[in-house]
Amino acid sequence: MRIARFTTGDSPRYGILEDGSTDLVVLKGDPLFMPVATTGERVALDDVRLLSPVIPRSKVVGVGRNYAEHAAEMGNEVPEEPILFLKPNTSVTGPDDPIVVPGYAEEVDHEAELAVVVSRMAKNVRAEQALDYVFGYTVANDVTARAAQRADTTWTRGKAFDTSCPTGPFLAMDLDVSDVAVRAWVDGELRQDGRTSQMVRGVPELIAYVSTIFTLLPGDIILTGTPAGVGPVRPGQRVEVEVEGIGRFGNNVVKR
Amino acid sequence: MRIARFTTGDSPRYGILEDGSTDLVVLKGDPLFMPVATTGERVALDDVRLLSPVIPRSKVVGVGRNYAEHAAEMGNEVPEEPILFLKPNTSVTGPDDPIVVPGYAEEVDHEAELAVVVSRMAKNVRAEQALDYVFGYTVANDVTARAAQRADTTWTRGKAFDTSCPTGPFLAMDLDVSDVAVRAWVDGELRQDGRTSQMVRGVPELIAYVSTIFTLLPGDIILTGTPAGVGPVRPGQRVEVEVEGIGRFGNNVVKR
Repeated sequence: MRIARFTTGDSPRYGILEDGSTDLVVLKGDPLFMPVATTGERVALDDVRLLSPVIPRSKVVGVGRNYAEHAAEMGNEVPEEPILFLKPNTSVTGPDDPIVVPGYAEEVDHEAELAVVVSRMAKNVRAEQALDYVFGYTVANDVTARAAQRADTTWTRGKAFDTSCPTGPFLAMDLDVSDVAVRAWVDGELRQDGRTSQMVRGVPELIAYVSTIFTLLPGDIILTGTPAGVGPVRPGQRVEVEVEGIGRFGNNVVKR
Repeated sequence: MRIARFTTGDSPRYGILEDGSTDLVVLKGDPLFMPVATTGERVALDDVRLLSPVIPRSKVVGVGRNYAEHAAEMGNEVPEEPILFLKPNTSVTGPDDPIVVPGYAEEVDHEAELAVVVSRMAKNVRAEQALDYVFGYTVANDVTARAAQRADTTWTRGKAFDTSCPTGPFLAMDLDVSDVAVRAWVDGELRQDGRTSQMVRGVPELIAYVSTIFTLLPGDIILTGTPAGVGPVRPGQRVEVEVEGIGRFGNNVVKR
């Protein structure tokens, strides 16, 4: 089962997309905070605008260098402890929303990632229990102003600017994410093509580690790192990201 | 005028503390999101537990090395661009709440700071208009796990852990913050005693700069940097912070 957050011009709603269907079955309220119950209404997927499946009430936690081949392409070693960074909820945007290159950059890098959405409050959870705290999985592009990330003492300008966290197109509710493809395209050309089985640390270990530092709240997102193949996208180009079993979406890159 | 967020055992409420008064005049709802209107009820300040004046819906933005003497004591130069870092809303805690030293640290450093609370959505604001986006000012302790901050590639473990952002005791609504004292004590001994006039970049410049990177939302907090004199506080010790014209509060440091 997959869930979409969408609009037909009014306030955001949620809907279930059954396998093989082209209709969304509309839900009452926000499934993160209430039991899944349908209103009876159906809306054609073609007639809605998909939104980011979740806007975190608290945070997006990113994990650096969680694929060895990507660490190597950046000239880095795999770190002993996961490298964590934060993106605020103001960085989260949805499918087909523009990625706006910030004023201090000329281009940004794409980083296709599997994103974990947290279901309930979590602190100091053990890896063995960690999947009990997963609401679902979505796809994220950890858009990065690489020059600023490299030049600055912190990764804030590099990773946390407005529109730096496109997510979508759906939440997959019961996916086995241990070995699924993670891909990115620029203007239709495949640039990243990894598998989650290449992660240095898997989803349970990441949730457990992150929860030793922060209290995770419902709707918080953990980005699980990007495979090899990252590279620039420039104003005028379109970047698409995909995780197998969840879906694919794209964003145009603009400069204002 | 100062505003407190408090509890008497039930849900958080807000109250006005007039100069010289020892009573809070209770407000209807959250003054960040509705006009200030009183319920008619008064509560003695002695009978309430003060809470963090605001829990951001989005983010706490910190600024590193914004006092030259503090940068020098850490062996750093004043940076050309402000160094920004993020604390999530899960780091925010209130007066007298414990500061919990994270599992990967033995002690934490205190950093007394003037904190700006944002009133309304702000993006790319000019410094000349920036004060129009200030709701009020409060006091924060930018608690830092210094060893982790120094050892790690990012400042996340150093600056963003649970309880790393005590704030309080009040929101000052119409304070001139251009030259007020910023102080910290450990177990009653004065350790930091600076003035906001020593900031490298003042409040308007910081708001303007931060708003070029992020959209600021109502209730977002900007920490304006700490003066010289930072140092460790260990489990069993109490740290207090003060900004002249706002107030003073303290927290006990614990290890669990």
